[in-house]
Amino acid sequence: MINEGNEPVNLRAALDSFDALWSPRIVTRVNDYDVRLAKVAGEHIWHVHENTDEFFLVLAGELRIALRERGEEREVVLTKGSVFVVPRGTEHKPSSAEGAQLLLFEPRGTLTVGDRHDEVPDHVDATTGHAL
Amino acid sequence: MINEGNEPVNLRAALDSFDALWSPRIVTRVNDYDVRLAKVAGEHIWHVHENTDEFFLVLAGELRIALRERGEEREVVLTKGSVFVVPRGTEHKPSSAEGAQLLLFEPRGTLTVGDRHDEVPDHVDATTGHAL
Repeated sequence: MINEGNEPVNLRAALDSFDALWSPRIVTRVNDYDVRLAKVAGEHIWHVHENTDEFFLVLAGELRIALRERGEEREVVLTKGSVFVVPRGTEHKPSSAEGAQLLLFEPRGTLTVGDRHDEVPDHVDATTGHAL
Repeated sequence: MINEGNEPVNLRAALDSFDALWSPRIVTRVNDYDVRLAKVAGEHIWHVHENTDEFFLVLAGELRIALRERGEEREVVLTKGSVFVVPRGTEHKPSSAEGAQLLLFEPRGTLTVGDRHDEVPDHVDATTGHAL
């Protein structure tokens, strides 16, 4: 069980407890949602969550998210301390040339690679999140 | 509509855009959840959300949350960068002697004073969140 004693969790300590990239850790839960932490660097894959929005908060570094909307492609840039929500049904591909640390909110069971996705390379963990 | 163009929002800029204490602003939405920002100082009131957990992330300062659990009272201390979830049905009272800035995640429509609460003093805004 996650955080069984229900004490505050310091995100810095939580981030220091793992190294794996593109492999989110579940830091706590809110109703049927996960709060996940991820370390990322390089490119994720194009994927889509058909039935849920996905919330990103950049805790360190810079994250880019490429988006395919209405037949066009654009990229948003999230600096440290920025938030962004990828709407459900929107194909997207996160990347971070220099690396970033993220907090995500999404329904429990949401797969990192979504419901439809490009081939999953070795450096991407297809997971619903790991325990801290 | 909130963030109609769907661009990233910098939390520092969002926090700089209002001064009111204990009066959360909705910075974005994730499915049927709000992401809210709040500035706080002094004491909130004892209250309870019967049907939802409530997520706190401290962006600046220090937050204390008094909790009544199984007939006992305890207080958790959230330093900057810490997260905590108040479980549904748990009476709680946030406070911050020196002031704090918070990010909250909770279902749209959740009242700041919950479903049962002490008398609401003038310094506490009973709201489901304001637009930024």
